[in-house]
Amino acid sequence: MLRPENYDPLNRSVGHVLDIIGKGWAILIIREAYFGTRRFEDFQRQLGIARNILTSRLKTLCENGILDRVPIKQGAKRHEYVLTSKGKALMPLLIALTQWGDKWVMGENQEAIIFTDRQFREPVAEIKVYSSRGQPLRARDIVVVAGPGASPEAKNRIDELNLVFESSD
Amino acid sequence: MLRPENYDPLNRSVGHVLDIIGKGWAILIIREAYFGTRRFEDFQRQLGIARNILTSRLKTLCENGILDRVPIKQGAKRHEYVLTSKGKALMPLLIALTQWGDKWVMGENQEAIIFTDRQFREPVAEIKVYSSRGQPLRARDIVVVAGPGASPEAKNRIDELNLVFESSD
Repeated sequence: MLRPENYDPLNRSVGHVLDIIGKGWAILIIREAYFGTRRFEDFQRQLGIARNILTSRLKTLCENGILDRVPIKQGAKRHEYVLTSKGKALMPLLIALTQWGDKWVMGENQEAIIFTDRQFREPVAEIKVYSSRGQPLRARDIVVVAGPGASPEAKNRIDELNLVFESSD
Repeated sequence: MLRPENYDPLNRSVGHVLDIIGKGWAILIIREAYFGTRRFEDFQRQLGIARNILTSRLKTLCENGILDRVPIKQGAKRHEYVLTSKGKALMPLLIALTQWGDKWVMGENQEAIIFTDRQFREPVAEIKVYSSRGQPLRARDIVVVAGPGASPEAKNRIDELNLVFESSD
């Protein structure tokens, strides 16, 4: 079967990322790891997830370099799971997912958790796209150009787009 | 079966959002809509996706208020699909997904597309978490607190977390 991440000439990243974090429970396991959960039993208890599914998801997350499986102490036989730098770099995505869901799915004043900054305990800012000069950008302010990894097919496609994003927002 | 979005006492948003956009092709359809694609045939041609799958995904995206199905002109029988405000609000997520995949999965200089600002044609800034005062935050700088929609179960869980995110980054 033709799978999205294999077809897409423009950017295989997006499909691949969702293949890793979009699978049921994966993002919740990653969030638990942010929260400090490390042991199999604790993931299991916190998420109420079947052991075989948890085993499978932890394995995939380790294979994809998002979690590291390490002995609980030097020489120990038992292991625990800790976020790698690659895994920690998913934090903005996790918060963007949560904010979008809170705003557009759950609606006002339904947030179960709020991400705040440690220093002032104020909710973090809404995740936005900024220019390299620090200006917030709306969808209409953003234009795609071909990158170094663009195939001839992708370059054609980007030409076709006239470098213009459809948006009236 | 216990599904993640039904279980999670802390925030159903995350699981729900991934249920909508994490399904094969959905995010690529949304991206095509950002690129200006509106017609069924054009989505089909650009994505090379089976018609029955495209039909099903467009239906789900409309039901979830991400796309609007509108007549191509007043009184016309044919329809096209346009992003709603809710759909456009996924832009930061789309870019965060792309940046993370480009950096951590594809590796340097493999980007097929680069998002730039229309005015200066410079790549947009890396998507980060900022405090409400504009300071960039690392994972360790972020603390979760209970929101207005937190169940007693969720509140207990957040207490358990000691309001501290595990991170050594």
